[in-house]
Amino acid sequence: MNKKLFLYDTTLRDGAQYKGISFSLQDKLKITKLLDDFGMDYIEGGWPGSNPKDEAYFKHAQYLGLKHSKLVAFGATRKPNTATGKDPQLASLLNAQTPVVALVSKFWQYHVKTVLRTETSENLKMIYDSVDFFKSRGREVILDAEHFFDGFKDNSDYSFQCLKAAIKAGVDNVTLCDTNGGTMPDEIATIVAQVKSKYPQLSLGIHCHNDCELAVANSLASVNAGVTLLQGTVNGYGERCGNANLISLLGSLLLKPSFNQNFSLNPKIQASQLTTLSQKVANVANMPLKNDAAYVGNHAFSHKGGIHVAAIAKASQTYEHIDPALVGNQRDISISELSGKSNVLLQAEKLGLDVSQNFSQVLSSIKSLEQNGLTLENAEGSFEMLVRKHEEGFAPLFTVENIQITVTNLKRSSELDTELCTASVKLSVKNKTTHMVEEATGPVDALNRALKKALSNFFPQVEQMLLTDYKVSILDPENASAATTRVWLQSGYGDERWATIGCSDNILKASTQALIDSYQLFLIKFQNNGMTSASDTDSQHINLDTNNSHQEVQNNGNL
Amino acid sequence: MNKKLFLYDTTLRDGAQYKGISFSLQDKLKITKLLDDFGMDYIEGGWPGSNPKDEAYFKHAQYLGLKHSKLVAFGATRKPNTATGKDPQLASLLNAQTPVVALVSKFWQYHVKTVLRTETSENLKMIYDSVDFFKSRGREVILDAEHFFDGFKDNSDYSFQCLKAAIKAGVDNVTLCDTNGGTMPDEIATIVAQVKSKYPQLSLGIHCHNDCELAVANSLASVNAGVTLLQGTVNGYGERCGNANLISLLGSLLLKPSFNQNFSLNPKIQASQLTTLSQKVANVANMPLKNDAAYVGNHAFSHKGGIHVAAIAKASQTYEHIDPALVGNQRDISISELSGKSNVLLQAEKLGLDVSQNFSQVLSSIKSLEQNGLTLENAEGSFEMLVRKHEEGFAPLFTVENIQITVTNLKRSSELDTELCTASVKLSVKNKTTHMVEEATGPVDALNRALKKALSNFFPQVEQMLLTDYKVSILDPENASAATTRVWLQSGYGDERWATIGCSDNILKASTQALIDSYQLFLIKFQNNGMTSASDTDSQHINLDTNNSHQEVQNNGNL
Repeated sequence: MNKKLFLYDTTLRDGAQYKGISFSLQDKLKITKLLDDFGMDYIEGGWPGSNPKDEAYFKHAQYLGLKHSKLVAFGATRKPNTATGKDPQLASLLNAQTPVVALVSKFWQYHVKTVLRTETSENLKMIYDSVDFFKSRGREVILDAEHFFDGFKDNSDYSFQCLKAAIKAGVDNVTLCDTNGGTMPDEIATIVAQVKSKYPQLSLGIHCHNDCELAVANSLASVNAGVTLLQGTVNGYGERCGNANLISLLGSLLLKPSFNQNFSLNPKIQASQLTTLSQKVANVANMPLKNDAAYVGNHAFSHKGGIHVAAIAKASQTYEHIDPALVGNQRDISISELSGKSNVLLQAEKLGLDVSQNFSQVLSSIKSLEQNGLTLENAEGSFEMLVRKHEEGFAPLFTVENIQITVTNLKRSSELDTELCTASVKLSVKNKTTHMVEEATGPVDALNRALKKALSNFFPQVEQMLLTDYKVSILDPENASAATTRVWLQSGYGDERWATIGCSDNILKASTQALIDSYQLFLIKFQNNGMTSASDTDSQHINLDTNNSHQEVQNNGNL
Repeated sequence: MNKKLFLYDTTLRDGAQYKGISFSLQDKLKITKLLDDFGMDYIEGGWPGSNPKDEAYFKHAQYLGLKHSKLVAFGATRKPNTATGKDPQLASLLNAQTPVVALVSKFWQYHVKTVLRTETSENLKMIYDSVDFFKSRGREVILDAEHFFDGFKDNSDYSFQCLKAAIKAGVDNVTLCDTNGGTMPDEIATIVAQVKSKYPQLSLGIHCHNDCELAVANSLASVNAGVTLLQGTVNGYGERCGNANLISLLGSLLLKPSFNQNFSLNPKIQASQLTTLSQKVANVANMPLKNDAAYVGNHAFSHKGGIHVAAIAKASQTYEHIDPALVGNQRDISISELSGKSNVLLQAEKLGLDVSQNFSQVLSSIKSLEQNGLTLENAEGSFEMLVRKHEEGFAPLFTVENIQITVTNLKRSSELDTELCTASVKLSVKNKTTHMVEEATGPVDALNRALKKALSNFFPQVEQMLLTDYKVSILDPENASAATTRVWLQSGYGDERWATIGCSDNILKASTQALIDSYQLFLIKFQNNGMTSASDTDSQHINLDTNNSHQEVQNNGNL
């Protein structure tokens, strides 16, 4: 029978120490629900003695009605030379009313002496008394053995004395912490095995940090050596370089034969939910999910090299270690100069485009664009426009006659400046010309407004298109103000998103390229899919556009 | 004696497969120099047979005069049923003229049959013939055994046959590739040990991918099992979730007793250079370095207040696994008011500035700027200007009256456009006004030219100041074209460099802020240090500036 492993999530406590994360009370409650729905065995909610937000959290969390998870309040062993009954920190832990209490305790002599500044013998009593305090009050007690591995290497006798004190007081689990994240996997395995052979009945946990990019490996090594409770955080959030990433750990524990043939988890936990959990927690934390995150990242199953893409088409396991659907993720083929025919064909097929007639022209256009810095790999919108422009009989829905931008009163200082950007756009649509002007604080925003104003006379649906994301990179920064700029733009309509790109040594021109491709594509999509209510006014509007209204447009343009 | 390990960098080949990276030829040559200076043993520069950029790279790389690294051209074994002499891919590998050739070859039966679509016996001949082809032409040959671990688990007999063919042809090293990144550390260790015991004389390498967040751990496990050549990339760039991160690997190999007591590296390689190498390559790749990167990230030694900060003050090893200076990184104590103060004092002292008189004003200015997105931490030039502006009696050497920028004929298409940016700058210097206009392809360049032209009438030395680097980041990309933009600018004079920063929802205003701070600072530095030949004309020039010449300046400005 497989050995049962338990998962212990500390996203809300250790994860909250990640620089950039600041959970509100509502955030913490939301994440608690997500973790419970996922089936996490333990959720460490915070340290009620350390701040009012965590105290409030435990008051609210009682009413969440958790179905799968046990809530844990985190704290420390009692103060030196203080009775447990007189330690306010222990009292607030008790008040948190959780079924489980986690107590951090010092296991490194050096730490006891230099930081705690007490006797090593008093520290043993602190461990015994604190565990006993909560056990005698009916709590499940997990003891976090801080600096366990550093302490063990320094003086393993003392480590064993600490463990003995905890066991004597009836501790339920001792979690060995690599607090500084500096221990190597082979050391972890050896030391865990030594502890396990000394106390085979003791339930052991592991708590790793990622300071050597080894937190996941160290956790897995400890499982092989006898640990059964795994602490970590969703997406690896945590102090400094983070904690062990539970998402990556779970991917391997659930899907890799080395583990799923020997160990089992709470059956509620499904690998197929990993991508969703990772993304939802990232959203609440307001931290963008890393594209290269193992198993769940946007790029975890992306293929850029031509031969890889060709092979994937023949047999996916040649360049995918698992089927992306197993973790709720999906394959992503990107276009780039490294790619050959297969990437382009696959991407075109995904977009429902037929490139069989003019494939070589499309490919050579892509190669020449990419040599000029215009990488299409994250810009499927520009890719689609490029393919469409090569289609027989393609005619753009509008062409740009002229664009002019003026920025005035652009002084260095203060917020009182009244600098203003003005953009004028002259377009022609089916032999009619429109000339519009708009203003805004920044030149790109002014340009976008003017474009939209000019187009909306012919295509009122453009009012419903939004720009949802905008990025700028400098390709040759050493050329400073004369450098080539790449602009990446994401647009949206309802739930649909598409990205376009522009590249020039003039940032406004690069932005113009990306904007125009985006509007062109939106209008094509609109025509083809009959988007929304505005569809019936589409072609009519152009025909009905009288000389008068056209005149008015031009007048507006001269304001 | 310690066993010697060799480092093999594939940032330029496998790293270039990372989604978002697109190296120009210049980028590739720059990174080659950085890797050589660092002391990397092997640099894999690209695949000359696959695209024109990589072919050009090897032509140029011959003239770099590498001191510490051997350059490697990457390619594949010959085509099935084709003589080596008639395979154009092998010919272009030979033409790359590198001392070392790396050949990827199939080691997984399944892959040979489904993708290569040839006989397993023909694949053995392909290995033998291709290795022999380059060995007989005097090259060092590294054979990349693709899918080695998947193949070995499927049919280890066939893996051994492939190895035998390579050995028979005189291969120098066989690098075992976990191509899909799906193998667990214990499997890697077991399989490497089996290979090592079968062929104890064969030099083995390892090539890992990070699809399970285990690439670094797998590489270290293989070192313990007998591998002596480590492939990886700077910052872990690479296809999908990336390759083994050489920076993290080196941190542990150089600084952890489990490794540095048993293994040695090329003595040119210094742990203290890791942060610099990581940052410089990230800059060229235009990929922001991850804050939580092991050893070298900005947050790798950051402490978010509370008991950790207090403990660090007593004994740093309580929450730091190594001294950050060992890898060229530094501690970062971010949150507390107290640490804010010491940071500012430290930075001011470093620049030779006295902030004792107006410390609280300086600190509150910094806090308010940073709340508006203007982080000064990489912009010591802007920090210096901020401190100087608070000094008693500070008067800027020039003030800006007005700046105006016009961009005309900004059409979407073609390289034939004649769009042009015009910037006019009105400055006042000691009660005199100058008004100058300049043009360029891009607006920031036009602005810089006009500023320089206006200033050079009073301060001819500005002609010698260069802009050496320019970066743009979007702080709130979801606001699209109305987003807040941060511009970071580096300027130079001789060997000196200083960085300034600007932040606004108008990219041109942000650029203006950074440019003006940079010119102001240059002029102050010039005054104080008496830079170069122009020093004697400095203050004189302003005084000698007659009404006439001033008039002329104004006329120029009206052109």
